[in-house]
Amino acid sequence: MKIAILPGDGIGPEIVEQAVKVLNVLGESFEMETAPVGGAGYEASGHPLPEATLKLALEADAVLFGAVGDWKYDTLDRPLRPEQAILGLRKNLKLFANLRPAIMYPELAGASTLKPEVVSGLDILIIRELTGDIYFGQPRGVRECPDGPFKGEREGFDTMRYAESEIRRIAHVAFQAAQKRGKRLTSVDKANVLETFQFWKEIVTDVHKEYPDVALDHMYVDNAAMQLVRAPKKFDVIVTGNMFGDILSDQASMLTGSIGMLPSASLDANNKGLYEPSHGSAPDIAGKGVANPLATILSAAMMLRYSLNKAEQADRIENAVKKVLAQGLRTPDIYEAGTTKVGTTEMGQAVVSAL
Amino acid sequence: MKIAILPGDGIGPEIVEQAVKVLNVLGESFEMETAPVGGAGYEASGHPLPEATLKLALEADAVLFGAVGDWKYDTLDRPLRPEQAILGLRKNLKLFANLRPAIMYPELAGASTLKPEVVSGLDILIIRELTGDIYFGQPRGVRECPDGPFKGEREGFDTMRYAESEIRRIAHVAFQAAQKRGKRLTSVDKANVLETFQFWKEIVTDVHKEYPDVALDHMYVDNAAMQLVRAPKKFDVIVTGNMFGDILSDQASMLTGSIGMLPSASLDANNKGLYEPSHGSAPDIAGKGVANPLATILSAAMMLRYSLNKAEQADRIENAVKKVLAQGLRTPDIYEAGTTKVGTTEMGQAVVSAL
Ligand SMILES: CC(C)[C@H](C(=O)O)[C@@H](O)C(=O)O
Ligand SMILES: CC(C)[C@H](C(=O)O)[C@@H](O)C(=O)O
Repeated sequence: MKIAILPGDGIGPEIVEQAVKVLNVLGESFEMETAPVGGAGYEASGHPLPEATLKLALEADAVLFGAVGDWKYDTLDRPLRPEQAILGLRKNLKLFANLRPAIMYPELAGASTLKPEVVSGLDILIIRELTGDIYFGQPRGVRECPDGPFKGEREGFDTMRYAESEIRRIAHVAFQAAQKRGKRLTSVDKANVLETFQFWKEIVTDVHKEYPDVALDHMYVDNAAMQLVRAPKKFDVIVTGNMFGDILSDQASMLTGSIGMLPSASLDANNKGLYEPSHGSAPDIAGKGVANPLATILSAAMMLRYSLNKAEQADRIENAVKKVLAQGLRTPDIYEAGTTKVGTTEMGQAVVSAL
Repeated sequence: MKIAILPGDGIGPEIVEQAVKVLNVLGESFEMETAPVGGAGYEASGHPLPEATLKLALEADAVLFGAVGDWKYDTLDRPLRPEQAILGLRKNLKLFANLRPAIMYPELAGASTLKPEVVSGLDILIIRELTGDIYFGQPRGVRECPDGPFKGEREGFDTMRYAESEIRRIAHVAFQAAQKRGKRLTSVDKANVLETFQFWKEIVTDVHKEYPDVALDHMYVDNAAMQLVRAPKKFDVIVTGNMFGDILSDQASMLTGSIGMLPSASLDANNKGLYEPSHGSAPDIAGKGVANPLATILSAAMMLRYSLNKAEQADRIENAVKKVLAQGLRTPDIYEAGTTKVGTTEMGQAVVSAL
């Protein structure tokens, strides 16, 4: 089995290094090949998603991704900026299903800005559609406003859109995920305003007929943003579109207070996937050896479970992470008085030892 | 001066009644005229925004609005549903600037789901553009997908758009509001993905030249949703588009834990405005006399300040509200042990007495 390793920028290389170390001690034989992406791709060959990198990702059975982005690329034209690599990989690899768990580790309860009773035991899964919506819809651009009160002026515009089968397939992923968990699914839309999401709601409701054992409810996106603050534990699985999912999954990850702990998976129709930590490239701490590698290590676990059919190895890694937390080891982002502060390499090493 | 009173549905009538009582004891001579809106408009004349109601709102100097919506209208076609009245009023009255303060009252610190140190003293102002963006952009609908991998399928679609002058005018409102407060403005966009918001960012940056005393920063909407959970007090004024503003202003209002306290103003270019509580129509508690009227009373205060040029009267009302809170009076939504539980009418009466 072949894994494409794309470390990227900022803390990407150092955290991916730890995840690779962990994969290497499992006793499996993975073929791993590394390629530059994001700013590193731009430096190497003038494009954030170099052709050779895309080719490797397409050939591999799974992709382990670090993070991309650095302030020094802020002045580049948009098509050359690091984050375009993420969008390009999602589109080319047809990774339409983004799975983002937001889990509260009991040991880290203090890290949240929310009161313990509101978030203790939190375990929700946000499923975000990742290749449709206003992210890729055409037409888009800046044009002369064609009509209405601002006719003749310059206007920026984009197209939000979802085709029926795009909604169906993400709905199936979501219902099936809910079946394996608490059997409750909340579909988040803005059906009271948007045609796209009135249509979304109609299709999700139709797919529900195939999953009578799952309780489905519909919630407006503004209300969902409120409920995630007020009573996040009421959710089990949330499914939504690309744009709303971008906002809500980041909001949800912050509820735990330890975004350095949260993995993510982006899957295609055959469970091939790209796995990356939910956090960014944090250029401010890059190279200092203080970044938390656990979200990346847990992303590698998700990779074993979803793409490589090695659920037991995934369990082993997740248990090893729990063990190092129980031992009191903490990188600076999750450090509290009474625990032991460690760096990136030590944390990776601790997981290896726990295995 | 003429005020249109639109009580609406659910708890709307009972909370507006208290605000009217408060306005009546100020010693000013306002002409007030009441008209049905939302579900009540539909019952009265078959449309959520009856012509006579719209006419009254257009003629008045300001509109005091309760809330609209009830489950019993959920099966109506969308154009007949209560919330269409809000969209119709915004569009017809050209209310492009929505001002939503999120303020933490010291007496209500316990009501928040966030830790006291994260939200105590919170005082942020969200300015949401209210007549543009994907809310009204054309074309929109359900059609046969014209091209791409889903060609020929049904798809739902909408158009996001902002013309230059729409962005300029809301930017001016935001910079001027920031000048009167902490002189910091955060413009929230998604310029890394959307053409509309790359254009937005460009125009806001240009308008900034006229306000050198205000510090401007730009933040992606997903990051803003995270920072509102992690460190909301770092914000002063936030400005954003209609769709992102819908989500973020609701999220922000929930940070205080007492959405029953938060007013809002929606203004046109001449400071004519519509004033309403940030919360909804809460049909589950309608008619029980337990709804919190303070958000509506505080909305009336905003009306005096922004539309009726009576800043002193606005101050009086705001101080009276602080006084009743200091007296320990609480409606059920903000009740805590050790305070005195009161109903809607008593709370309104207490504000009247405090005046
Ligand atoms: C970097 C950006 C294009 C991306 C997105 O908006 O999808 C990011 O925010 C994410 O969620 O992975
Ligand atoms: C009811 C709905 C159309 C409205 C909106 O989305 O603007 C509401 O959520 C609001 O924020 O006032």
